[in-house]
Amino acid sequence: MTAEHVEVPSELDRDLALTALDGLDHPGAELDATAAAVVDVRRFGAELPGGWSVGGGINGGFLLALVGRAVRRAVPDRPDPVTVAATYVGASVAGAAEVTTRVLRRGGLATVAAEVSQGGSLKLTALATFADLATNLTDEVATTAEPPVLPPVEECVGLAQAPDEVRRRAPLMDRFDLRLDPACAGWAAGRPSGVGELRGWLRLPDREPDTLSLLLACDAMPPVTFDLGRPGWAPTVQLTAHVRALPAPGWLRLRQLTRNVAGGFFEEDCEVWDSAGRLVAQARQLARVPRPQA
Amino acid sequence: MTAEHVEVPSELDRDLALTALDGLDHPGAELDATAAAVVDVRRFGAELPGGWSVGGGINGGFLLALVGRAVRRAVPDRPDPVTVAATYVGASVAGAAEVTTRVLRRGGLATVAAEVSQGGSLKLTALATFADLATNLTDEVATTAEPPVLPPVEECVGLAQAPDEVRRRAPLMDRFDLRLDPACAGWAAGRPSGVGELRGWLRLPDREPDTLSLLLACDAMPPVTFDLGRPGWAPTVQLTAHVRALPAPGWLRLRQLTRNVAGGFFEEDCEVWDSAGRLVAQARQLARVPRPQA
Repeated sequence: MTAEHVEVPSELDRDLALTALDGLDHPGAELDATAAAVVDVRRFGAELPGGWSVGGGINGGFLLALVGRAVRRAVPDRPDPVTVAATYVGASVAGAAEVTTRVLRRGGLATVAAEVSQGGSLKLTALATFADLATNLTDEVATTAEPPVLPPVEECVGLAQAPDEVRRRAPLMDRFDLRLDPACAGWAAGRPSGVGELRGWLRLPDREPDTLSLLLACDAMPPVTFDLGRPGWAPTVQLTAHVRALPAPGWLRLRQLTRNVAGGFFEEDCEVWDSAGRLVAQARQLARVPRPQA
Repeated sequence: MTAEHVEVPSELDRDLALTALDGLDHPGAELDATAAAVVDVRRFGAELPGGWSVGGGINGGFLLALVGRAVRRAVPDRPDPVTVAATYVGASVAGAAEVTTRVLRRGGLATVAAEVSQGGSLKLTALATFADLATNLTDEVATTAEPPVLPPVEECVGLAQAPDEVRRRAPLMDRFDLRLDPACAGWAAGRPSGVGELRGWLRLPDREPDTLSLLLACDAMPPVTFDLGRPGWAPTVQLTAHVRALPAPGWLRLRQLTRNVAGGFFEEDCEVWDSAGRLVAQARQLARVPRPQA
């Protein structure tokens, strides 16, 4: 007889837990008021953990992974995000939230709309394309992008070394292990490089990367504007993530950069590379430039 | 007395014409079946012109501009797209279409969901953020990206010089004036550069660029895979466009590139620069690599 196996959910799994509010056990078809199509609508309850907050709101990458978790429940045979495009309508706060999914199309690529609301107020709205990446991708890899060149993990700057006032504003820093290349961590000591690029290693404490946690990785770093000498919260307007491959176990390498700070907005491109050297996720967000601090 | 001024709509304006099917003159609030919020829902009729088709479907950039036109009607005091993220659910064809808009949030940045359907079948679903860019942008321009360096327009390759079989498959080529840098137009003569980048000039025949036509520009070029020696239609899965500034009159400069062809998909980044040297739009799409042709 083997010992009974008890599955211990990872910290992230607990944080991303969802409760089916309706429709899950009896998936009912509802007539969407706005389209001619009949769609499968589901509602989930979630508790947004304060540990994922930053600058007063819940981290955008966490919300993206939460949406991904709900979409996976809605189309379980298409478990992997291919694209998730989210508009951040308002800042989410720690506490109860509702996640709604609407399946707009089934097929090899499933299209699902999702919303996160709190107290009846819309916080995030997203469109997701999901697939089964284990069977949906061809073997070809003709990537010409180069992974970021990083010093070894132990020579990089952990967030535990961040100034206290940064850590107080960003409890999410304790949720994962992020090690920044010292060449682009000068901002933490008041000496930003001015280039507009952040590079580093990322690992979740008790979990190997999967396609949902890649969504988290796409918005895990500080705003790239820190490297431009512009500290402060940079609210995301919109973020689109592409998951391009099933990630290998081990540390992820991240590169985040901006090339167009203008008009009060900036784009932030994020690349996520796995330990096998594959470009496993690409994301771009549009965010507001932080206001000068008093 | 001055002569009466008769406004002659441009060809593009005629192509993007919308008919209010309901809700426009009497904007009624409907209770969205899927969210706790009351939203403003409008329906428009449109005729998708065959002249904008390519490879059997309607061009994705045209559909993006059509969605933009409808969203502008829904939030007329926020006339400019800031972000439009569209999922291409199925190929659209020439003929009647319905465009539905749902205003999810009003404010400095308005959030609007939009759908395009034909015969009750969903073709495109999108989330848009609109604003009044004339008043919403700060004066700061700290762009570090460099515009593409192009030979003069008259030394570039017009689409009229494309092979007949390409023109037959892509009537949209006659809808605008696109001149490719000869250095990345070798594919038209069977000699692709293999780099994965297209550069060129773009102008609409009877209209200066505005924020809606920038959406069109974000998907006006042939697929960048042509430059990799992979001819054929590359269906867009998802496209997100950011409009970053009001464009100056004159020719637009486009650069389109890919760095991650893998697993049967590729990302295509598009930059649109105006005649004043501003990076006025940035777009990224995920598309399927064309299948090898028989």
